[in-house]
Amino acid sequence: MDVSRDKVFQQIADKLGYSFEGQMKIGGNYVPLVRNGHEIYISGQIPRVGDTVVATGRVGVDVDLEEGRRAAKICTMRALAILRQSLGSLDHVRKVLRITVYVQSAPDFTQQSEVADGASEVLYAIFSAAGVHTRTSVGVYQLPKNASVEIDMIVSADDVVTATGA
Amino acid sequence: MDVSRDKVFQQIADKLGYSFEGQMKIGGNYVPLVRNGHEIYISGQIPRVGDTVVATGRVGVDVDLEEGRRAAKICTMRALAILRQSLGSLDHVRKVLRITVYVQSAPDFTQQSEVADGASEVLYAIFSAAGVHTRTSVGVYQLPKNASVEIDMIVSADDVVTATGA
Amino acid sequence: MDVSRDKVFQQIADKLGYSFEGQMKIGGNYVPLVRNGHEIYISGQIPRVGDTVVATGRVGVDVDLEEGRRAAKICTMRALAILRQSLGSLDHVRKVLRITVYVQSAPDFTQQSEVADGASEVLYAIFSAAGVHTRTSVGVYQLPKNASVEIDMIVSADDVVTATGA
Repeated sequence: MDVSRDKVFQQIADKLGYSFEGQMKIGGNYVPLVRNGHEIYISGQIPRVGDTVVATGRVGVDVDLEEGRRAAKICTMRALAILRQSLGSLDHVRKVLRITVYVQSAPDFTQQSEVADGASEVLYAIFSAAGVHTRTSVGVYQLPKNASVEIDMIVSADDVVTATGA
Repeated sequence: MDVSRDKVFQQIADKLGYSFEGQMKIGGNYVPLVRNGHEIYISGQIPRVGDTVVATGRVGVDVDLEEGRRAAKICTMRALAILRQSLGSLDHVRKVLRITVYVQSAPDFTQQSEVADGASEVLYAIFSAAGVHTRTSVGVYQLPKNASVEIDMIVSADDVVTATGA
Repeated sequence: MDVSRDKVFQQIADKLGYSFEGQMKIGGNYVPLVRNGHEIYISGQIPRVGDTVVATGRVGVDVDLEEGRRAAKICTMRALAILRQSLGSLDHVRKVLRITVYVQSAPDFTQQSEVADGASEVLYAIFSAAGVHTRTSVGVYQLPKNASVEIDMIVSADDVVTATGA
């Protein structure tokens, strides 16, 4: 268990210029996170910070590769903020099992993997070997609120008293 | 365990105006449902009733938001009909873990979450807290048989004698 | 346990005209396979053989149904090659739980299920009943490297000493 995971999380948040504290707004009859034994499912995250989606439009036309990659980092940080809130600390994450990266793409934009690399970099920076995951990246036609990227995640985690099932 | 789950299922079926009995046609070398321990995976469901796909075309142009939401409800009811058939009763569902909602979208249609709300509403109406799930909603370019919506699902369930692995 | 699974795998590889030996190139901070208990997640596979993606463009315009189906077979063989490399033999696969089939589609191409049948056929040919899976097929707007098809997979497997978590 690396005690500095939460610190690295904060460093990345600072570098991105956003706080990921207490802003996990989500509506409707669904929740950001559901736990089943050691497995935790996290709802699809768009690059929303507070009330604003900070990357909108198609990657490859409205947004360039670098902005797309940054959007992927923000989606990932949101997912981790949700995990941290539920688990108390990112130290309780055992392994990132899978991420699916949906990229709102221009018709001829084929660098979805390169966008997804932004997510993989954040996971590796924070979790090292435990953050090495499986990944699927696809180019979709639209995303909620015109977001450029959406990412969902499955992780395994320790049993911890503070974990909530929802 | 809420004894009225199967009843609420029937009420929603009546309100939608469809029967979800014995019509789970599915072809090929795959099946509607696979169980792995307590986890059950359900194949992607389109809003097919009998031989007819009742909502086709792009949401936002061929089909409006309300029709898209209704399509999401029908997909969800199909998934639950499959579960009920396998488990004997929806009372054996412990928790809805994840749904993924694919919406065949107009290029500028960004309300995939609002379409997905139709699915989440059905799940909450039937399962209450156990139906509160994680969700990913994306806008895709096409779907099988020109369906407007497709939804797949992962749930956890009790061990029951009537459950089949396929 | 069917001792001929690896043999059938080889027969299909021969029929497709490709070797699936030692070519599982994958970059970045993610891996082809992650194991969590008995469950194994496999990263999204495109029809890449060596350095070449052998099926590119939209199914329904650049690539026809038959080529799309063949691409789905190659994606599936790649996923199985990864599994075989990790497990030592495909005999250690207990059950294919889920595949998701992403088809880069023409705007009016609605036969994503028929493309996905290529994947299901390979799984059934190799695993028989253990290969009968749940499936979601969708039509996406683009895929990494302009691939025509991408497939990811979840399977359950025996505990084996040679299995690696990554």
